[in-house]
Amino acid sequence: MAKSSFEYVKSYELDDTLLPNTWIVVRIDGKCFHKFAEHHNFTKPNDLRALNLMNYAAYQVMKDTHDICVAFGQSDEYSFIFNKNTAFYKRRGAKLLTTINSKFSSSYVFYWRKFFGDEILQYPPCFDGRIVLYPSAENVIDYLKWRQADVHINNLYNTAFWALVLQGNLSPGQAEKRLCGTVSADKNELLFKEFNINYNKEKEIFKRGTILLKLHVQLDVKKKTVASIIDIHEDMLKEKFWLKYENLLEPTSKKVVHYNGPITDILNDQILNREKTKCSPINIS
Amino acid sequence: MAKSSFEYVKSYELDDTLLPNTWIVVRIDGKCFHKFAEHHNFTKPNDLRALNLMNYAAYQVMKDTHDICVAFGQSDEYSFIFNKNTAFYKRRGAKLLTTINSKFSSSYVFYWRKFFGDEILQYPPCFDGRIVLYPSAENVIDYLKWRQADVHINNLYNTAFWALVLQGNLSPGQAEKRLCGTVSADKNELLFKEFNINYNKEKEIFKRGTILLKLHVQLDVKKKTVASIIDIHEDMLKEKFWLKYENLLEPTSKKVVHYNGPITDILNDQILNREKTKCSPINIS
Amino acid sequence: MAKSSFEYVKSYELDDTLLPNTWIVVRIDGKCFHKFAEHHNFTKPNDLRALNLMNYAAYQVMKDTHDICVAFGQSDEYSFIFNKNTAFYKRRGAKLLTTINSKFSSSYVFYWRKFFGDEILQYPPCFDGRIVLYPSAENVIDYLKWRQADVHINNLYNTAFWALVLQGNLSPGQAEKRLCGTVSADKNELLFKEFNINYNKEKEIFKRGTILLKLHVQLDVKKKTVASIIDIHEDMLKEKFWLKYENLLEPTSKKVVHYNGPITDILNDQILNREKTKCSPINIS
Amino acid sequence: MAKSSFEYVKSYELDDTLLPNTWIVVRIDGKCFHKFAEHHNFTKPNDLRALNLMNYAAYQVMKDTHDICVAFGQSDEYSFIFNKNTAFYKRRGAKLLTTINSKFSSSYVFYWRKFFGDEILQYPPCFDGRIVLYPSAENVIDYLKWRQADVHINNLYNTAFWALVLQGNLSPGQAEKRLCGTVSADKNELLFKEFNINYNKEKEIFKRGTILLKLHVQLDVKKKTVASIIDIHEDMLKEKFWLKYENLLEPTSKKVVHYNGPITDILNDQILNREKTKCSPINIS
Repeated sequence: MAKSSFEYVKSYELDDTLLPNTWIVVRIDGKCFHKFAEHHNFTKPNDLRALNLMNYAAYQVMKDTHDICVAFGQSDEYSFIFNKNTAFYKRRGAKLLTTINSKFSSSYVFYWRKFFGDEILQYPPCFDGRIVLYPSAENVIDYLKWRQADVHINNLYNTAFWALVLQGNLSPGQAEKRLCGTVSADKNELLFKEFNINYNKEKEIFKRGTILLKLHVQLDVKKKTVASIIDIHEDMLKEKFWLKYENLLEPTSKKVVHYNGPITDILNDQILNREKTKCSPINIS
Repeated sequence: MAKSSFEYVKSYELDDTLLPNTWIVVRIDGKCFHKFAEHHNFTKPNDLRALNLMNYAAYQVMKDTHDICVAFGQSDEYSFIFNKNTAFYKRRGAKLLTTINSKFSSSYVFYWRKFFGDEILQYPPCFDGRIVLYPSAENVIDYLKWRQADVHINNLYNTAFWALVLQGNLSPGQAEKRLCGTVSADKNELLFKEFNINYNKEKEIFKRGTILLKLHVQLDVKKKTVASIIDIHEDMLKEKFWLKYENLLEPTSKKVVHYNGPITDILNDQILNREKTKCSPINIS
Repeated sequence: MAKSSFEYVKSYELDDTLLPNTWIVVRIDGKCFHKFAEHHNFTKPNDLRALNLMNYAAYQVMKDTHDICVAFGQSDEYSFIFNKNTAFYKRRGAKLLTTINSKFSSSYVFYWRKFFGDEILQYPPCFDGRIVLYPSAENVIDYLKWRQADVHINNLYNTAFWALVLQGNLSPGQAEKRLCGTVSADKNELLFKEFNINYNKEKEIFKRGTILLKLHVQLDVKKKTVASIIDIHEDMLKEKFWLKYENLLEPTSKKVVHYNGPITDILNDQILNREKTKCSPINIS
Repeated sequence: MAKSSFEYVKSYELDDTLLPNTWIVVRIDGKCFHKFAEHHNFTKPNDLRALNLMNYAAYQVMKDTHDICVAFGQSDEYSFIFNKNTAFYKRRGAKLLTTINSKFSSSYVFYWRKFFGDEILQYPPCFDGRIVLYPSAENVIDYLKWRQADVHINNLYNTAFWALVLQGNLSPGQAEKRLCGTVSADKNELLFKEFNINYNKEKEIFKRGTILLKLHVQLDVKKKTVASIIDIHEDMLKEKFWLKYENLLEPTSKKVVHYNGPITDILNDQILNREKTKCSPINIS
C-alpha cells in the first residue's frame, strides 16, 4: 500500500493560472436546452419561470463569490465577470470555472420547485462553461453589449416566429421561410399588423435579459444604504447605463444607487436573510 | 444594435484542445464537504447514503458519456477516465471538464432524496474539477492505484479516529494526538483490542471506494450478454484485478465478464430501463 | 530605485511546463530561405554545402543537449527529438525551444565559412521553431516517416523541375505546368528519358535527408566502442531501419552499432576532440 | 511513400495564440555568459564592445519587426516589446518568440567582428527566451523600470566589486565579503574614497542600459524628419522620460523627437542605408 510509489502521477497536473490584471469572464450555457425546454413545457417564445430560475441560480453563485462584479443572463446562458484584480483560487482557471459551473448547476435543480411548482423536473440538466479573459474595461463592456445585442436579435425573431406558429397557424418550416431575409423593422411591422403585438411593450426581461449588479443599493429613500445584489433589465447598449453605474467593473464600487424597482425574488431573499441574521439595519417601507 | 461591432470579443476565446492520444482524467471534488457532511448528519466515519449518491451521480455521468471507460470514487471525490482516442467535444478541455462537472453536480441534487429520504438537502452543494492527461496505460493504472491507496490510508485513520471519539469518548484533539505517529498495524491493533473492530471485515466500499466499469456484463449465466456499467469495490492494487479486467482502458473492450454480485441501484436502473424500452433481451434470474 | 515596487511584474510569467512522459519534438525552419538561397547562390535543386551546414549546426545542438536522442534534417528544416523522460530545463517549453533554436541559429553563422568558403554570408539568417509533443513511440516514428516522405516528394519534384528549367530551357512557369498532375512514376520517367537522370542514383542525402543518431558507434572493427553521434541517410520508411536501430527513442540505448560509412565532418570533429582531450581511447584505422 | 498515412501527426501541433490586446514582451538572456565573458576577455565590470554588439543585434531584430515599439538591453539580456495590437504571426507565441530569438542569435555572431575586431569568437553563443504578456501600459512601464532598476543595482555592485579586486587587490571572496550588507550609499562612498571613482560620472550605458525607441527622429534641426530607431540611455525611473516620449507604447507614435546625441553605429547604419537607397531625404549636418 505504498501510496508514495504512485504519487508521481500528481506531477502530471499542470499549472493553469490565468494572466493577472485581466477581467475573467465565465460563461455557462445549457446543453441540449432546446429539448429540455420541450420536455418541461416551456412557454414559447419565452418562459418567465425558466428565466427567473436562471437568474436565481446565478444569484446563488454571485452571493457566494465575492469577486464577481457583474453577471448577465439570457435564454439558457449566463456570464459571470470577475474584477480584474481577483485572486480567487489564485486565478487557477479550472478551479474558477468548475466552481461557478457546479454551483450554478446544483442551484438550478435545488430551486426548480420554487419557480416551476408542479412542473416536475424530469432529469438533471447540464451546463457547459468556458473562460475568456479581457484585458481592458472597453473589452468587457463590448462583451456585455455583444451578449445583450444577441438577446434582442434572437428575441425579436423568436417572438415573430412563435406568433406565426401559435397564432398564425403556420408550420415551423413555413414560419422560418416567412422570416427569411427580413430585417428588424419588418419583424416589428409583422408583429404589429398581423398580431397586434407592439414589440416595444414586451417585457424588458425578454428584450434585454437580466443584469445582476453588486452595488450599494438603497431600497428605501429614508433609510440606511445596503450593500446588495440587484437584478435589472436595463439597456447596456446606451451610454447612460455606463454613466449611471460607473465603476461597475471595479472591485469596490462605493457609489450608492437608489433603487425603486420591484422587490424581486433575489431582493426578497436578501431582505429575509438580513432580518434573520439581524446583521444589517435594513428597512423596506 | 449592430451586433457585429462587438463581436470581435469572441476572438478572445482561445483554443484549449487537449493533446491527442492521451488518457484524459477529470477529477471532481466536493467543496467544503466537511461542513456539508455535518450540516446533513452524515454518519461517521462513512455514510453509506452519501457514498451511494456519489456513485449514482457518477453513473449518470458515465451513462451519458460514451468515451468514459472507467470511473473511481471515494469520499467526496470522483475520477472519470476517457479512453485515449476520445474525440468527445473535439477534446476541448473546458467543454469536457464542465460537462462532467455540471452533470455530476445536478445529478447529486436530483437524486438526493433517492438516497437520503427524509434528510432534507439544506443548500446546493458545489464540486470543483480538474483535468489531467496521462500518456501511458501504466500512468493511468498508477493514477487509479494512487486514489485507491488514498482510500485505505484515510479510511483506516478515520475508522480509528471516530472509534476513539464516538466509542472511546475522546475529544477530537485527544483522538488526533493518540493516532499521531501510528502506522497501519498500530491502528488495526487499536481497533481490534480496544473496540473489538476487525478492520478487514469493514465494508469493501469503505476500504476500497467504488470502481465503475463499462463492460459486457453477463448478469445471468444462462442468458444473453449485456453491455453495461457495473459498480464494484475490488482491489486495484493487486495485479489480478488488471488481468481480470484486461483492456479496461481501451475504447471497446469486447471481453464478457460474468457478474454474480448484488443487484445495486446502478444495475437496477439499467435493468428497468431495458425492460421499459424493450430494446435488449435482458433476463435476471 | 526601489526595485521591489516593480518586481510584481515577474508574477505575470506563467508556467509552461510540458506534459511528462511524452517525446518532445522541436522543429526549426528557415524563414524566407527561398530568397536566402538565391542571395547566396545555392545550387539547384540541392546545395550540398547548405545541407552539410544544416547538419553541422544540428550536430552542435545535439552535442550540447544530452537528452536529444535523434534529429532529422532536410532542406531548411531540422527536427530534434528529446526522449520522453527528459527533465532538461524541468521541461519548460520556452526554455527548451529557444535554447535549441538559438544554438542552431548562431552555429549556422559561426560555421558558414567552413562549408561555404568564399561565398560570403550577406546577412544573418533567421529560423523559427515550434514544439510538438508525442505520447507514443509509434507517433514519433510516424513523425519521422512523415518528414522523410516529405523529402522524397519534394526532391523528386524539384529534381524534375530544375532539370526542365536548367537543362530543358523551360521557364519556371512552363516547368510547373509540365509537372502538374504527374505522379512519381511520371517524374522518374521524364528524368530518365529526357535528361538521362536515374533518380535512384541521386545522392541519398538529397533523397532521404539526414538522420543524426546518438549511439554507441564502433568506427573501427578491431578497436574500442565509442559513444557518438553519426549522420546517416537511411530509409526510415522501411521497417528494417527500426530493427537495426532498436531503442533509438530510449534515453540510454546500449546497443553497439558497427559503422563503416564515410568519415563525415561530424565524425571527424568527434575524432579530433577525442584526440585533443585524450579522454577516450578511440582509434581510426 | 504514402505521406498521408503519417500526416495525422500534424494534428498534434496545438494552438498557442496569445491573448489579444496585451503587450507582448519577449526577453532573451545569454546562456552561461559568465563563462562566455571569460573566454572572450570581456573587460570588467563592463565591456563596451559586448554591450554595443548586444545593442546592434537588437537593432537588427527591431528593424525587421515592425510592431516592436521599444526594446531595452542590459548586460547579456534584451527585452523586446510589441505594441498591444500587433497581429504579427497572428500572435502565435512560439513563432514570435523563436523569430526574435533566432534573429538576435545569428546577428550576434554575424556582427561580432564589427565590434570585437581581432578578439576571435571561440564558439557559437546561446540565448534563451521567454514571453510575458502585460495587459496595461502601467504594467509595461513597470516592467521597463524593473529591468532598469536591475541595471543600477547590479552595476553599482559590480563596479565596487571589480574596483576592490582589480585595483584593491582583494580576492573575489574577500571583495564579496567586504560588500556584504552594504547599501548604495556605502558603495558610492567606497568607490569615491578608496578608488577616487565618482559613480555618477560612469558611462550612462553602464548605469542605465540601452533603450531602443522607434520614433520620428529629427537628426538635424534644419532638415527633414526621419522615422528611425535611436539608442539612448536615459532614466526611465523618472516621470519626465514618459512625458518626453509619450505614446511610446502605441503602434504609431506621430510625435517628432529632436535628437542631438552622438551618431551611434545604429544611427549610422540607418543614415548609410538611406543614402544607398535614396528613398528618404535625410541630411546630417
